Amino acid sequence: MKPYAEMTRDELLALRKELKAQYREMQSKDLRLDMSRGKPSVEQLDLSMGMMDVLSSDDDLTCEDGTDCRNYGCLTGIDEAKELLGDMMEVNPNNIIIYGNSSLNVMYDTVSRSMTHGVMGNTPWCKLDKVKFLCPVPGYDRHFAITEYFGIEMINVPMSESGPDMDLVEELVASDDTIKGIWCVPKYSNPQGYSYSDETVRRFARLKPAAPDFRIYWDNAYGVHHLYDHDQDHLIEILAECKRAGNPDLVYKFASTSKISFPGSGIAAIAASRNNLEDIERQLKNQTIGHDKVNQLRHVRFFKDIHGMVEHMRKHADIIRPKFEAVEEILERELGGLEIGSWTKPKGGYFISFDSLEGCAKDIVARCKKAGVVMTGAGATYPYGKDPHDSNIRIAPTYPPLGDLITATELFALCVKLTSAEKLLKTME
Amino acid sequence: MKPYAEMTRDELLALRKELKAQYREMQSKDLRLDMSRGKPSVEQLDLSMGMMDVLSSDDDLTCEDGTDCRNYGCLTGIDEAKELLGDMMEVNPNNIIIYGNSSLNVMYDTVSRSMTHGVMGNTPWCKLDKVKFLCPVPGYDRHFAITEYFGIEMINVPMSESGPDMDLVEELVASDDTIKGIWCVPKYSNPQGYSYSDETVRRFARLKPAAPDFRIYWDNAYGVHHLYDHDQDHLIEILAECKRAGNPDLVYKFASTSKISFPGSGIAAIAASRNNLEDIERQLKNQTIGHDKVNQLRHVRFFKDIHGMVEHMRKHADIIRPKFEAVEEILERELGGLEIGSWTKPKGGYFISFDSLEGCAKDIVARCKKAGVVMTGAGATYPYGKDPHDSNIRIAPTYPPLGDLITATELFALCVKLTSAEKLLKTME
Repeated sequence: MKPYAEMTRDELLALRKELKAQYREMQSKDLRLDMSRGKPSVEQLDLSMGMMDVLSSDDDLTCEDGTDCRNYGCLTGIDEAKELLGDMMEVNPNNIIIYGNSSLNVMYDTVSRSMTHGVMGNTPWCKLDKVKFLCPVPGYDRHFAITEYFGIEMINVPMSESGPDMDLVEELVASDDTIKGIWCVPKYSNPQGYSYSDETVRRFARLKPAAPDFRIYWDNAYGVHHLYDHDQDHLIEILAECKRAGNPDLVYKFASTSKISFPGSGIAAIAASRNNLEDIERQLKNQTIGHDKVNQLRHVRFFKDIHGMVEHMRKHADIIRPKFEAVEEILERELGGLEIGSWTKPKGGYFISFDSLEGCAKDIVARCKKAGVVMTGAGATYPYGKDPHDSNIRIAPTYPPLGDLITATELFALCVKLTSAEKLLKTME
Repeated sequence: MKPYAEMTRDELLALRKELKAQYREMQSKDLRLDMSRGKPSVEQLDLSMGMMDVLSSDDDLTCEDGTDCRNYGCLTGIDEAKELLGDMMEVNPNNIIIYGNSSLNVMYDTVSRSMTHGVMGNTPWCKLDKVKFLCPVPGYDRHFAITEYFGIEMINVPMSESGPDMDLVEELVASDDTIKGIWCVPKYSNPQGYSYSDETVRRFARLKPAAPDFRIYWDNAYGVHHLYDHDQDHLIEILAECKRAGNPDLVYKFASTSKISFPGSGIAAIAASRNNLEDIERQLKNQTIGHDKVNQLRHVRFFKDIHGMVEHMRKHADIIRPKFEAVEEILERELGGLEIGSWTKPKGGYFISFDSLEGCAKDIVARCKKAGVVMTGAGATYPYGKDPHDSNIRIAPTYPPLGDLITATELFALCVKLTSAEKLLKTME
């Protein structure tokens, strides 16, 4: 098949007719498939069922330091959990606070605290006329939802395969002291699966922000979420790099076990400099008596150590990898050479990012939905849900069983073709 | 022994000498006892160890409605948990949101959200010059810590056996629209163990606050925490009473299972009108994808229903009751008739409140500490840690084993006597 743009009007009309017939046939199958969110599949969840057995009524729920995990206390988390998550996040356990079940909640709290109490002695953001965040795009909709909820103005920064456009980031943060943060998913980014290059990380650590309370929100959600055993992306550890660059307080790093053990029943953490952590602990001691230590202990007893976690992640990869490969194969087979879309080929994380012809994404997603396949809403990967090109679509291959995923991706490819053909026909009118 | 105030100077001098000798003897015992916090004892924690067995890798972690508790989702909690906590909180499950492990965190979030986003469309508190809370005193230090952290001015309202001084509450909230809330522990209050009378609850529900965003923060922490099977306090349910009074949106009600299952690994909840809950959910959906559903399911499977929970609480009572009785017995035996202190005799909750002669509380607590017994800091039961009479001391009898508790209470009584004798001697100078 030749590129659609090289087709004549008649060729496109014939093509549209054929694609419409195929679409009607798919519609008649009454599909109900969901590729909208980065959720682990049932098979993946089953990998962690052993976690339900590691603590029984015969077990001692006491920490190494003698803390009874069943009672109150231990505000910043038990030592064993700090060690495990320290290894996972590649930071010193002393630079960690363990939270509850959701790293998103930790990020929310971080923004909320900055609004009401400011960052390390600086003016609370709620007292300022304007607060802005930089948002590498496409990015993660729930990040953007937090900043939008707090009335923080979001500025798009284009992503590339090596990370955000650092020329732009450097220029903006140096010149505008109302810019207080930037949302980053530095490894296997959401949705493109790109990992920041060494140069990008180094430039982040060397930023010279005009605002003393500017922080990098480093959401390392997919730090150990590789698809392959050897062909893995590697990221320079940002806390250490910031320290080396003389900017130790520049970054908040977030992570959780949500896509390692059970989403919603995992443990989350923040890692930062001691200055930042002390600032956070002044809030934390008013906010709670402590997070769920029994669940922290459960995770430690189940994974034992970082090697156990890495072995566990290999099992996740074995389930996920064929799904990523299936999507990429179908997209290549159905769309290769047509020049109506491009997609990423990540080595980890939870998403594949698809870019259609300009102005087609909303129609493609709507068309999928009409035939029973729910995709992430078009525009969701941009602040305010506004994709200026209406072209980016996030594909989340993990949740459906492989058979369903194949069907859903075939339908998706069909919708891309049909919408693109119509789009091109319209430009000829 | 006659009342200290009726003693001559010589009698008091002799008494002081004798008490000092007793105190030195206690000091030589090198005690290390803690009566400072309302923590369950190890024996109580053991009651809930069965909770570690109700979910195993052989069990299905699916809810009645088909939700897989292991995965993301279910923002406001699983239906079964809403039913259980609905019965516990005496409200319709539809009026409940289940949170994470800490009701204190829910209260913190509630204040924090009111600061940044306001209450049901009203001006965010951070945009106001002044925000005030009423604080029935003595009260719970962690409540006061939250309001202090947010710079909210706290106004003392005296407590009586039937609850806060409602004449004062009514007058203040009606006349001052900067008063946005009142902290209440309505049943077996912290620290006195008083329960609000029917009249008090009715007057709360009929408040006519000047501020449309005034809310009653009804922390029903000890709703099912009775010491006796039959001799129990009963509280009129506040949500229903507010609805009957035509003020359905007036109250936020908080509770958790912290002192039912495991403190720090329980589940917490807020109950409120649908209007309030919808206001809260607008925040919640940005804050998290959902709380720990596996732990919610664990609680439901363990307690089964409210009857199971009530039976469980009876076992707690059997452990706690002798401790309360021992403290009361020692105080009566050692201090009865001396007119140097009074104390409450609660039928539930976690505390006994002690009032010394004016100006003695700090010295008594300091003296206890020097002999190895840690009490809650004097003043902690008042906003800003300032007890205007320096007389209130919170006794927390639950955590130490009975033998230790007896020793600690005897030391406490001794310190009360010694400090009181010295105080009276000073007034004679």
